[in-house]
Amino acid sequence: MAEDRSKREPARRPGGRTARVRRRILEAAAELIARDGIGGLRYDQVAEGAGVNKTSVYRNWPNRTALVADALATFGADAAPLHDSGDIDADLVDFLEALATATTSPEGRALLTVVASAREDPELRAIVDEVFDRRLASLRDRLQAAVERGELPAVDLSLLGTMLTGPVQLFVSRGSRTFTRADAHRVSAIVLAGVRAAADAPVTGERDADEARH
Amino acid sequence: MAEDRSKREPARRPGGRTARVRRRILEAAAELIARDGIGGLRYDQVAEGAGVNKTSVYRNWPNRTALVADALATFGADAAPLHDSGDIDADLVDFLEALATATTSPEGRALLTVVASAREDPELRAIVDEVFDRRLASLRDRLQAAVERGELPAVDLSLLGTMLTGPVQLFVSRGSRTFTRADAHRVSAIVLAGVRAAADAPVTGERDADEARH
Repeated sequence: MAEDRSKREPARRPGGRTARVRRRILEAAAELIARDGIGGLRYDQVAEGAGVNKTSVYRNWPNRTALVADALATFGADAAPLHDSGDIDADLVDFLEALATATTSPEGRALLTVVASAREDPELRAIVDEVFDRRLASLRDRLQAAVERGELPAVDLSLLGTMLTGPVQLFVSRGSRTFTRADAHRVSAIVLAGVRAAADAPVTGERDADEARH
Repeated sequence: MAEDRSKREPARRPGGRTARVRRRILEAAAELIARDGIGGLRYDQVAEGAGVNKTSVYRNWPNRTALVADALATFGADAAPLHDSGDIDADLVDFLEALATATTSPEGRALLTVVASAREDPELRAIVDEVFDRRLASLRDRLQAAVERGELPAVDLSLLGTMLTGPVQLFVSRGSRTFTRADAHRVSAIVLAGVRAAADAPVTGERDADEARH
């Protein structure tokens, strides 16, 4: 997995000292964003947190927006990885449970705050879109693999991703109780049963009526 | 509907001048919260926005937290009402579409921002909990009526409510495109098909294994 990921990243001596420095910088940036918000992120503090020179931060991320986006996306990908065990139901339960845990963390809460305020601010919005696009793309890839193996019917995978992660985010942002593994089971089981039932049954619901009045 | 609601509220000459004044105050407060956030809400501005004396605001809401909670809850209930036409599938489509529209409005976005930052602040958290509890209670009541009529199996109605509204909120908070009536159809159809399929089928999923190892 780690090897695959480094292959997909821009070649920058992956796996070596540079990769380790980059990771420390991203982790420090995520911590600072969680503490002070995106507006308060300062390169010298990132450098101090990562134990590197400020020039290392600037050299790797001349663009502040890219630094924020990479920090949040890396945090998300590390915290809620999407495995492919060949069993989509089981992998989704693992993913949703990890997503809930990650979203409850300081970095996760910071990301939720950014998301909520992003609509007003074009720069923030671009960051949030990119972070979500990456996460949704991973989820879509995993769902697509399940479709190709016949585990799931061919459906709108972006909507399916939203239906799986939306309840987790709402649950966690309310914070009235912990989102448990049993909750992850229930959400995943209901949504997957729903897309399978919708695909199996000759649909009589409004969905088709809306799309092709007949 | 309006008559039923006024009956449930604390008796304060419902339907009369006082009720109209209260409503104008709540609408003005919701607008100000949307513009300036909860921290910036000032009684004199609420009074000015509502066209009433400041004493009217204080007399009706001596407690600022209650004013904020009532303003946001009233906005939510007005903007996304839950009808009971006897057809749960159709009523949920109407509700989810209205919820998306309401959440996209300035007041709705303000509420999302409050939700995201509420975990850190006990007072905000209490407000958010109350607003969501009221909305979830209405949704639960409507789902419960459907269960009693045999339209839905008996399931965890709080989780079901989260599974219906969570995707809408995530969709809207990202804002990459409008949540349409067709989207409301799809979300509602998949979730309802899922709970019906999960109730019909002899479950082999992890959900039961998790709850009662057998």
